[in-house]
Amino acid sequence: MVFNELNWVDFLKKKVKTDKNVLVGIGDDCALVRAPQKGALLKSDLSIEGVHFKKKNLRLSIIASRAVSRVLSDFAACGGLPKFIGISLGAPKYLKLKHLKEILEEVILLGRKYKFSLVGGDTSYSSKLFFDVWGLGFADKFISRSKAKEGDYIFLTGKLGTRKFDEKFAPRIKESQYLVSNFRINSMIDVSDGFALDLYRLLKESKKGALIHKTAVPVTRGESDFYRGEDYELIFTVDRNERKIDLLRSKFYFLGTIESHKFGYKIEDNNKLNEVNITGYTHF
Amino acid sequence: MVFNELNWVDFLKKKVKTDKNVLVGIGDDCALVRAPQKGALLKSDLSIEGVHFKKKNLRLSIIASRAVSRVLSDFAACGGLPKFIGISLGAPKYLKLKHLKEILEEVILLGRKYKFSLVGGDTSYSSKLFFDVWGLGFADKFISRSKAKEGDYIFLTGKLGTRKFDEKFAPRIKESQYLVSNFRINSMIDVSDGFALDLYRLLKESKKGALIHKTAVPVTRGESDFYRGEDYELIFTVDRNERKIDLLRSKFYFLGTIESHKFGYKIEDNNKLNEVNITGYTHF
Repeated sequence: MVFNELNWVDFLKKKVKTDKNVLVGIGDDCALVRAPQKGALLKSDLSIEGVHFKKKNLRLSIIASRAVSRVLSDFAACGGLPKFIGISLGAPKYLKLKHLKEILEEVILLGRKYKFSLVGGDTSYSSKLFFDVWGLGFADKFISRSKAKEGDYIFLTGKLGTRKFDEKFAPRIKESQYLVSNFRINSMIDVSDGFALDLYRLLKESKKGALIHKTAVPVTRGESDFYRGEDYELIFTVDRNERKIDLLRSKFYFLGTIESHKFGYKIEDNNKLNEVNITGYTHF
Repeated sequence: MVFNELNWVDFLKKKVKTDKNVLVGIGDDCALVRAPQKGALLKSDLSIEGVHFKKKNLRLSIIASRAVSRVLSDFAACGGLPKFIGISLGAPKYLKLKHLKEILEEVILLGRKYKFSLVGGDTSYSSKLFFDVWGLGFADKFISRSKAKEGDYIFLTGKLGTRKFDEKFAPRIKESQYLVSNFRINSMIDVSDGFALDLYRLLKESKKGALIHKTAVPVTRGESDFYRGEDYELIFTVDRNERKIDLLRSKFYFLGTIESHKFGYKIEDNNKLNEVNITGYTHF
């Protein structure tokens, strides 16, 4: 079989099942979909060989899974769900049809699990392998990173440092839905570039400060986990008038409180207050 | 000024103006938009250094313009208009802030011209420069490449071979809107990989054949223009019961007719019928 764009698109069309909201899927100039009428979310995320992952010893299904899960994590961070996903793939010469199929299988699995349809994308030769995953999702109630209020309780969905760079991970879609459906969540962000940096981003956009209790931050290795990327847990802040705060504390990690902008971004350790170092991982 | 992701996002937020349908733009985990309620179109398109363009002697504004215009051309091919655009940029080390600004200026100009808002994307280091441009648009009436009918008249919006690989080009958005608003257009596709190949794609998806009159195909250099990519004209087929066919013939190029699948894909030259060679440009 000659591997070319025409054959590949034919294969995709046969293989990819879409739901009733996809009126025209893969194979036309554009996909035609029934978009969510309110709260439509748009997002894209790059995963590039040598930057976001090392190809050596890493299976394509894992690389693809992580590339897609990064976008799902962004939807989760907004209190949203994915609906339609597209993948633009930069494919080196060594990528054969069987490799593309391996990637596709993984995306189809994720689609079943998280209820999205693969509706398009592009594939082109590239010297380095890369994925740009983009998507259209929706949120009944959009949670921004910019709406933290003074007095909010700061929480984290899971322990830092437990996730390995070379494994699939589960984006916190379910947790996010549970949170936005049951509690007064004022702001949220996912930990992609390190806990310290991503909380800084939330504070910066909200024009607020924070007081974090060092011993309350759940780590695996130690303080270095504050600055390590790719955790994909959610940091969220809960309104101080939320009544079910004990329920939240029983399920998630309570870290501290949102303070005034003037207070700054501080961490309490043995009753001493230190400024937080906002070093994190940026892709430049 | 230190050039990093945080600064760049701040700059984008200040610089990019969006319309009232963008509720949350660049800077949050996702963009939040008012999506078109019917006929929502999704599309992405890769432009990669060394594959889709050579960087040497080529200005970034031109590369960026062409990358975005390719997606606009896909919207045009569906009878649609762009609404929201995102750009995922693979940025080599030599790209400085002034270069990103040059790219951004161009995208903002195109946004004004074609009435779309830049709502997101991603930026990451990459050894080769690349763009993945994705977008959400809409079409009141979606035109597929798969709905050509036997007896349809085949037209082309403009001469082949006039466009240079190293210049900006105007996607046929206006022409597409004029066509779908005034005529019975059954199918349409844009010429991105060569006239012969892209018409073949339309025929394949429509399960039809075609008879093309060789002397009717408007070329610049000669027959080689049949196989040359990057024309970004539209091939469209018009229902045989369309009454204003003379008006169409006065404005666009009439090339031939849609035939049965059994007839095949043939070109008439001096009263001889030949099979069309479907060689074209694919990005593998």
